[in-house]
Amino acid sequence: MVKEQFDGYKYIEGGVCAAAGFTANGLNCGINPVKEKNDLGIVCSEVPCNTAAVYTRNKVKGAPIIVTQRHLEKSGGISRAVIVNSKNANTCNANGEEIAEQTSELAAKELGIKPEEVIVASTGVIGMPIFIEPFESHMHELVSGLSKAGHTDAVKAIMTTDTVRKEVAVEFEIEGKTCHIGGMAKGSGMIHPDMATTLNFITTDAAVSAEMLQKALSGIVKITYNCLSIDGDTSTNDMASVMANGLAGNSLVVSEGTSYETFKKALYIVMSNLTKMLAADGEGASKFLECTCTGAPDIDSAIAVAKSVIHSPLVKCAMFGGDANCGRILCAIGYAPADIDVTKTSVSLASAAGEVSVYKNGSALQFSEEKAAEILAQHEIYINIDLDQGQASAKAWGCDLTYDYVKINGDYRS
Amino acid sequence: MVKEQFDGYKYIEGGVCAAAGFTANGLNCGINPVKEKNDLGIVCSEVPCNTAAVYTRNKVKGAPIIVTQRHLEKSGGISRAVIVNSKNANTCNANGEEIAEQTSELAAKELGIKPEEVIVASTGVIGMPIFIEPFESHMHELVSGLSKAGHTDAVKAIMTTDTVRKEVAVEFEIEGKTCHIGGMAKGSGMIHPDMATTLNFITTDAAVSAEMLQKALSGIVKITYNCLSIDGDTSTNDMASVMANGLAGNSLVVSEGTSYETFKKALYIVMSNLTKMLAADGEGASKFLECTCTGAPDIDSAIAVAKSVIHSPLVKCAMFGGDANCGRILCAIGYAPADIDVTKTSVSLASAAGEVSVYKNGSALQFSEEKAAEILAQHEIYINIDLDQGQASAKAWGCDLTYDYVKINGDYRS
Repeated sequence: MVKEQFDGYKYIEGGVCAAAGFTANGLNCGINPVKEKNDLGIVCSEVPCNTAAVYTRNKVKGAPIIVTQRHLEKSGGISRAVIVNSKNANTCNANGEEIAEQTSELAAKELGIKPEEVIVASTGVIGMPIFIEPFESHMHELVSGLSKAGHTDAVKAIMTTDTVRKEVAVEFEIEGKTCHIGGMAKGSGMIHPDMATTLNFITTDAAVSAEMLQKALSGIVKITYNCLSIDGDTSTNDMASVMANGLAGNSLVVSEGTSYETFKKALYIVMSNLTKMLAADGEGASKFLECTCTGAPDIDSAIAVAKSVIHSPLVKCAMFGGDANCGRILCAIGYAPADIDVTKTSVSLASAAGEVSVYKNGSALQFSEEKAAEILAQHEIYINIDLDQGQASAKAWGCDLTYDYVKINGDYRS
Repeated sequence: MVKEQFDGYKYIEGGVCAAAGFTANGLNCGINPVKEKNDLGIVCSEVPCNTAAVYTRNKVKGAPIIVTQRHLEKSGGISRAVIVNSKNANTCNANGEEIAEQTSELAAKELGIKPEEVIVASTGVIGMPIFIEPFESHMHELVSGLSKAGHTDAVKAIMTTDTVRKEVAVEFEIEGKTCHIGGMAKGSGMIHPDMATTLNFITTDAAVSAEMLQKALSGIVKITYNCLSIDGDTSTNDMASVMANGLAGNSLVVSEGTSYETFKKALYIVMSNLTKMLAADGEGASKFLECTCTGAPDIDSAIAVAKSVIHSPLVKCAMFGGDANCGRILCAIGYAPADIDVTKTSVSLASAAGEVSVYKNGSALQFSEEKAAEILAQHEIYINIDLDQGQASAKAWGCDLTYDYVKINGDYRS
């Protein structure tokens, strides 16, 4: 996928280690002895970081979510490290919080920081017993191996059914100081709007107060991660955190203004790229789908319509089959929770192979099935909806629904 | 599937023709020349019927929905016939209402009734041009062939991706008079809670006022059709109607009381059986799923929890794979729009092969994987949730998510 370019922002390598003062590592500590891949990751800042986070709204919360919230409250929004495991979600376990606290303590001890400066996260099977031993026996090795190059091992440690590593980093300037922001994400199935969605860890050397970080993160989550739908399920363990260590040397951003806007845009670039990567790597996905809704009366209506189309299993199946069954798009617009006049709605389908108008003013157009088939045979499909009722617009992202989604999820635990 | 028995109610044959005075017919009028199956159906009462109906809440409504609403308003809730076609939803067509009105007029003329006494409905592809000629050239044959035995041809005419005919009829008594109620339904994909859901036509010879019919229908829709989820999409053409011609000779039911309760229970038996048939025949379904939520603080919470679990694609895939990945059930409970305390929640899985407890007080239990696999290998799976927070309960129905669902919907139009 070609990355969208923004003036004044340059894509760089390095993921969560792109910003000054951050190192990372990952290894296989053996949480599930049968699975070979990395399952334990760490990200660390050499100095304390102002920190913001958003969490799943599922009422069944993973123990690490509860423990991280408690830590950031106790530390006053200051963190130094992230410790994260895959292969076990540490959710619905009677001793879950205890394990998450012990894991934090092990990491804190090795790093010489306070336990409440640790962000702890888990992903994997829900309701599987979890033991402290693998963490205990590997924490020293994990911390000893922290390095600038360690971001690739760390991102491997958070992958579950992900087929590609999801990392992005950007360089930009605030007050003439060079700043960096980078992130890593995991997520493939169980992803749905209205949540923090998936595990996402973002690091920056820009100096931004915890309050302004939270404001930027909450605003951007709404138009990036929350506009993503793979299967409509909302995980128990979703979390996104941003750590800002200030090593870039700009004056601390404590209010809205040019510096805040510059930082917020950098955060948007990182988060929107990770969102698209998550969509393209949806479980079993063969096609990336982007739905743009323009002409909406307000932003919430635009988001609701774009999400409704992206979320529809029938639209997703039609895209998998390359079938221009566009009535299903209208149907999904019609049940979106938004006050829209469908008699004004127009729809087109686009891809690298061109664009075809399929609906105008709520009525089906006669279009070339050959042209439509050619467009839908591409791997990146764009569904464009114009409500013709205002100036607001929004995008949502997802993927098609395929045999492989069913296969992956019919027997996830083995 | 074994039908649940109720004292005082006897299952009988006859579907929509089981009640006195109703006849039906169906044939292939050639709406899509490539498809051989019946596509035009009719149900007729020899005398006028008090009538109630519920419709889709999708903002994109099929033209027949709009026309039927207009007819029943004009006739004061009186109807005489249903005319219904498959293979084309007559939705998002510029001339859709015109076609639906013309179809009603053709039927009315042949039957010698008023056009506003006709309920008109369509199901099939959205946004496909529709022409009056097939209706025109076959209406005489359709009406001439009306008979008591015609219910099977009528139900064939409303099937789309349905693999089995969905009909049920019941005999019961009001004031010592023998009454009958029967119905037919179509529906396989694009079925979701919070709607009238699917096409459903119910007929009875009991004498019930239009107002009390509407009250009974609206109440029962909430706990039957609206608790059904196949794929989460909500159709543009969903409708359920009940026609009562009074030929059983009981005194007209015009208020609540014993007679109303007796009738309402009969309607519930018909609608709950049709709902289960729809669930079992969900597109691509290999397993029927029933989720029962007990111990809820109120009925709405019970419905919300049961529906959330039935609707979860991850739960549906796990059931397809026979994988007791029960954390996904907890996860789906957790994102249900209900105020519940998950630390009190218990879950068990059951089927003809037995029952196994998998969660207690929100924590995973260690259970026999062999036993769970044996239970999930059956074709009818029961997910039982106890919230331990009150006395309310509800059920929801659905099916597993399979390769065949994706296959059917990847190329539905061809």
